[in-house]
Amino acid sequence: MPSPVIAAAIRDIPDFPKPGIVFKDITPVLRSPQLFREVIQTMAERWRGNGLDAVAAVDARGFIVGGALAYELGVGFIPVRKSGKLPWEVVSETYELEYGSSAIEMHADAVRPGQSVLVVDDLLATGGTAKAACNLIERCGAKVAGIEFIIELCFLNGRAGLGRYSVNSLVQVK
Amino acid sequence: MPSPVIAAAIRDIPDFPKPGIVFKDITPVLRSPQLFREVIQTMAERWRGNGLDAVAAVDARGFIVGGALAYELGVGFIPVRKSGKLPWEVVSETYELEYGSSAIEMHADAVRPGQSVLVVDDLLATGGTAKAACNLIERCGAKVAGIEFIIELCFLNGRAGLGRYSVNSLVQVK
Repeated sequence: MPSPVIAAAIRDIPDFPKPGIVFKDITPVLRSPQLFREVIQTMAERWRGNGLDAVAAVDARGFIVGGALAYELGVGFIPVRKSGKLPWEVVSETYELEYGSSAIEMHADAVRPGQSVLVVDDLLATGGTAKAACNLIERCGAKVAGIEFIIELCFLNGRAGLGRYSVNSLVQVK
Repeated sequence: MPSPVIAAAIRDIPDFPKPGIVFKDITPVLRSPQLFREVIQTMAERWRGNGLDAVAAVDARGFIVGGALAYELGVGFIPVRKSGKLPWEVVSETYELEYGSSAIEMHADAVRPGQSVLVVDDLLATGGTAKAACNLIERCGAKVAGIEFIIELCFLNGRAGLGRYSVNSLVQVK
């Protein structure tokens, strides 16, 4: 379900982080108690009572939403981070960027086989990071219940690469 | 009030991120629904009804706790980030590290004059980052209500440099 109030609060920043990119700034949403609450409640309503064991969120903006969502749902929180940030034994996934590649990691004991895990990030662009996060969870024997984003950049068609999953977004940018 | 259950779940990682450092890994606390809830509830109980307007948290682990705490308290969330990560107009503070210096930033419109803001991070070491975050908030005309940490490394005496503030931690490492 699209949320026009949240969409209106997102701030477009032209040419950030580089020329030609219009960055979607969610900080006006986060600093509003009402809008931040609406983001978390809207996501939580979809998953409450669905047997989730954990929310896995991607470093760093995903942590803000994921932390609040895990808390609201009464489940554990799993950080998925860029290489070298997590201190213990990790599983790692490499994914393609426009130029080159990057990797994300999760602690090898973060999820247990059979657990049901919701993946959360702020923005769906090409979907590469979310797909890599799902791979990490499945390699540890857990199940990806679905993926939640605040914003979906529909013109990049990231959803296509996440076809096996239940993908939800609060704001769709056409 | 010290929390022995949370203390027992924190994992020591020797020589991370470099030789001689014992890293305090909070991921076992976060992945436990009960312990994550206890962290947030313990912090929230101190501040509920105290007229807070926002929680400001430091990138990146602080975002997990800060996001959930802002949500629980029904206030806004303000990200404080390393240089170059925030897309809009920022205020910036430089602080000293063991070798060299670093800077953190906050959006210039993140807080309004007169607002009451709680600062949150996962770990109090020397206190340089937290002090810089407090400076950012005060430079924008808002008031620092206090600072919350999960872990305090007491032997580094970071609390001394934060003497003007109400500083709380859930776990004290002597």
